[in-house]
Amino acid sequence: MDRQYYNVVSLIRKKRDGGYLTKDEIKYLIDSYTKDELPDYQMSAFLMAVFLNGMNDEEASALAYSMLHSGIVVDLSSVPGVKVDKHSTGGVGDKLSLILAPIVAAAGVPVPMISGRGLGHTGGTLDKLESIPGFNVNLDLDAYEATIKKHNLVFIGQTEDIAPADKRIYALRDVTSTVECIPLIAGSIMSKKLAEGIDALVLDVKHGSGAFLKDVNESKKLGQRLVDIGLQFDKKVIAYLTNMDQPLGYAVGNWFEVVECIDCMKGKWPDDVREVTLLLSGAMIYLGDKADSVDEGVKLAEEMIASGKAYQKWIEIVGEQGGDVSMIENPDSYPKAEFSLEFKAEQDGYINSIDSYLVGMASLELGAGRKKKEAPVDPQAGIMLHKKLGDKIKKGETLLTLFTNKKPYLESAVQILKDAYGISNEQTEIKPMITHIIDKDGLRDFDYSTVPSLKR
Amino acid sequence: MDRQYYNVVSLIRKKRDGGYLTKDEIKYLIDSYTKDELPDYQMSAFLMAVFLNGMNDEEASALAYSMLHSGIVVDLSSVPGVKVDKHSTGGVGDKLSLILAPIVAAAGVPVPMISGRGLGHTGGTLDKLESIPGFNVNLDLDAYEATIKKHNLVFIGQTEDIAPADKRIYALRDVTSTVECIPLIAGSIMSKKLAEGIDALVLDVKHGSGAFLKDVNESKKLGQRLVDIGLQFDKKVIAYLTNMDQPLGYAVGNWFEVVECIDCMKGKWPDDVREVTLLLSGAMIYLGDKADSVDEGVKLAEEMIASGKAYQKWIEIVGEQGGDVSMIENPDSYPKAEFSLEFKAEQDGYINSIDSYLVGMASLELGAGRKKKEAPVDPQAGIMLHKKLGDKIKKGETLLTLFTNKKPYLESAVQILKDAYGISNEQTEIKPMITHIIDKDGLRDFDYSTVPSLKR
Repeated sequence: MDRQYYNVVSLIRKKRDGGYLTKDEIKYLIDSYTKDELPDYQMSAFLMAVFLNGMNDEEASALAYSMLHSGIVVDLSSVPGVKVDKHSTGGVGDKLSLILAPIVAAAGVPVPMISGRGLGHTGGTLDKLESIPGFNVNLDLDAYEATIKKHNLVFIGQTEDIAPADKRIYALRDVTSTVECIPLIAGSIMSKKLAEGIDALVLDVKHGSGAFLKDVNESKKLGQRLVDIGLQFDKKVIAYLTNMDQPLGYAVGNWFEVVECIDCMKGKWPDDVREVTLLLSGAMIYLGDKADSVDEGVKLAEEMIASGKAYQKWIEIVGEQGGDVSMIENPDSYPKAEFSLEFKAEQDGYINSIDSYLVGMASLELGAGRKKKEAPVDPQAGIMLHKKLGDKIKKGETLLTLFTNKKPYLESAVQILKDAYGISNEQTEIKPMITHIIDKDGLRDFDYSTVPSLKR
Repeated sequence: MDRQYYNVVSLIRKKRDGGYLTKDEIKYLIDSYTKDELPDYQMSAFLMAVFLNGMNDEEASALAYSMLHSGIVVDLSSVPGVKVDKHSTGGVGDKLSLILAPIVAAAGVPVPMISGRGLGHTGGTLDKLESIPGFNVNLDLDAYEATIKKHNLVFIGQTEDIAPADKRIYALRDVTSTVECIPLIAGSIMSKKLAEGIDALVLDVKHGSGAFLKDVNESKKLGQRLVDIGLQFDKKVIAYLTNMDQPLGYAVGNWFEVVECIDCMKGKWPDDVREVTLLLSGAMIYLGDKADSVDEGVKLAEEMIASGKAYQKWIEIVGEQGGDVSMIENPDSYPKAEFSLEFKAEQDGYINSIDSYLVGMASLELGAGRKKKEAPVDPQAGIMLHKKLGDKIKKGETLLTLFTNKKPYLESAVQILKDAYGISNEQTEIKPMITHIIDKDGLRDFDYSTVPSLKR
């Protein structure tokens, strides 16, 4: 069929006036933009109109569909098994992909993982992997397919072939204040994930102080939209809404997080990391048909840790993708950041709040994140937490240790952190990590009794 | 003072989230855009946010101020007298500037007039003037000043020096569906008008089927905004809201309208053109301190017609600006369009509605307007009305004659016009032309008894 033509100004006007675009109209906009026939200034006006007037379900699906088909959709049908990936909307200290991918792959489920870099206050899986000397995330699609066939696992970044429209729109949103928009976020996530060649997807939608969407209601909407799009594309999907009221685990910063992951794979878990990682792993194993329930999946995940098979899978993939395995086996040999500073409590009491956003921003300030796109990150920079929510602290005790290779950043990071901790005499109750589940049966509160194996 | 720097993404976000920008913030955006430091895609996102979230009074003034000062503000203090211009928001057949400028100049008030070209369904003063062979609207600012000194009158287009930010933003709005937005329209109009070197301004804000803003309530808001900005810049301002339920006069199309203007200057007026032209002229003469009231101004305007002084001024300025005076003196010598067609009534009755927008679009189709920016217009193309609202018509009688140099356009124009006329057995009441006035005392209904000389 001949390509249909639309008047772009009229399409922008329709969205501006609160109307809804057809699938063909959205496809026309995205195709034209990908082919450089539609200039940035028209796309940015359209994105702002979408930001302010929203999109309905059909439009959001059409957007994901059009961005997906702006590039190659990888065909992994030659890889046996149900291919499952996980996506997190991002949070501070969120290193879970690095732990759960080897667990799930070790359990027999192929995990084709295309990840992103850190953005704003949140870290990115690629930056963490690249802190391992030699680790190559820039595989082409042939190497991607060969690697998952061989190891049930592969880690790569978004190539030029994968959803190029998303790549350009993502960059444009960043400079036009159109980032925090549910249909645009959902389209961006799902176009990339659907291009990987997956059969199933587990989503971790964060809320709380360290998340992009702090409000749980916004996270519910995003989670629902992500699940809806996945189901429309005939994928098996489960989304969990999880709490990001404090950084995940104790390590924030690229290499620090890799080290924490190695500990986890050896069974030395921070409670919060353990709970979410095992749940997500269990769900992936369940969707990958290697367990009859999420709970059975969690049990199998624990076996992968206990048996050392997950750690073995990790060593295997690090080696395959060019990483220096000796650093994984002996993390103490890794070079240290030149400067450090202990950030201390100014009063006695219980830690009742940690502003994860500020911890993330301080880590970025120290060099672990990017102030500008494409800037390099410092793998040695970051923050180690000594105490978490609910812990008792004495005045003068260390809350955090900051690490950087640029001394002045210590002072500016301290400035950022000065209001990050809430300490009081009363110990408040810690909220549960996992709050809601969304799947084909809709949204409901998460019921811990359905996954008894999560209990320690 | 050093130039202050702002984060453009944050400024866009502020407007996106319904906030209000400071004068300095708006100035920063406009200055950066003028200097090519801010790309089109950020400006278009900002414009869409303004379209959807609006601007308050301070922001609208700051926008006009910033666009005004993006270029030269002409100093006409060496020209004696109170300099007065008129601006119309544009309508179909709106040729009033060509008649009232010579009237007011002849009455002793200097009229420095910077005009625009036709846009969409509405004609532009520059296109009408350029239908006079040789007429040069591209004077530089020195010639502009010299001409008004010599003749009390000058007609030019927006030069590169006049509000360049407005010129670029105007073009960007056109392709990003951000045109019909009151603060953006007001800023665009006022930045140009204030740059002319005027002391006073009379505004004709149209509503009805032929206007850009069809709804009278939108016109009230625009009029109020225009008056507010003018007053803030210490200009004397009066705005009239006038009815555009049918084309003004009988001629639509560039040279046709010039001919109608010549007739008017000789005292042969269509009623609607006479009423609005005399009122606006009277207001300009009043603001120009050559009459003690608008009514006295109207009387003086009529004298300028009756005495032939207005026509004489017109001949004088046409000659000064290079126009072929013989064409004005003998309009029948003008070359005719090659093709014409009579558009006839399909039933007996009274004309109870004329969709001026469709008449304007048909005229554009015939060649009198632009389908694309910078396209040439055909001075011979256009439409002559034979009947107006309230007139009795018989089936088969001619409603309109269409003129063009491209034959196929006759058929497409007829298609556009097929629903333009409403004819019924009952003669409905004709609405008054002038509906409201806005000045320093605010908005009120227009009271015809305050300007008794308007009566014929």
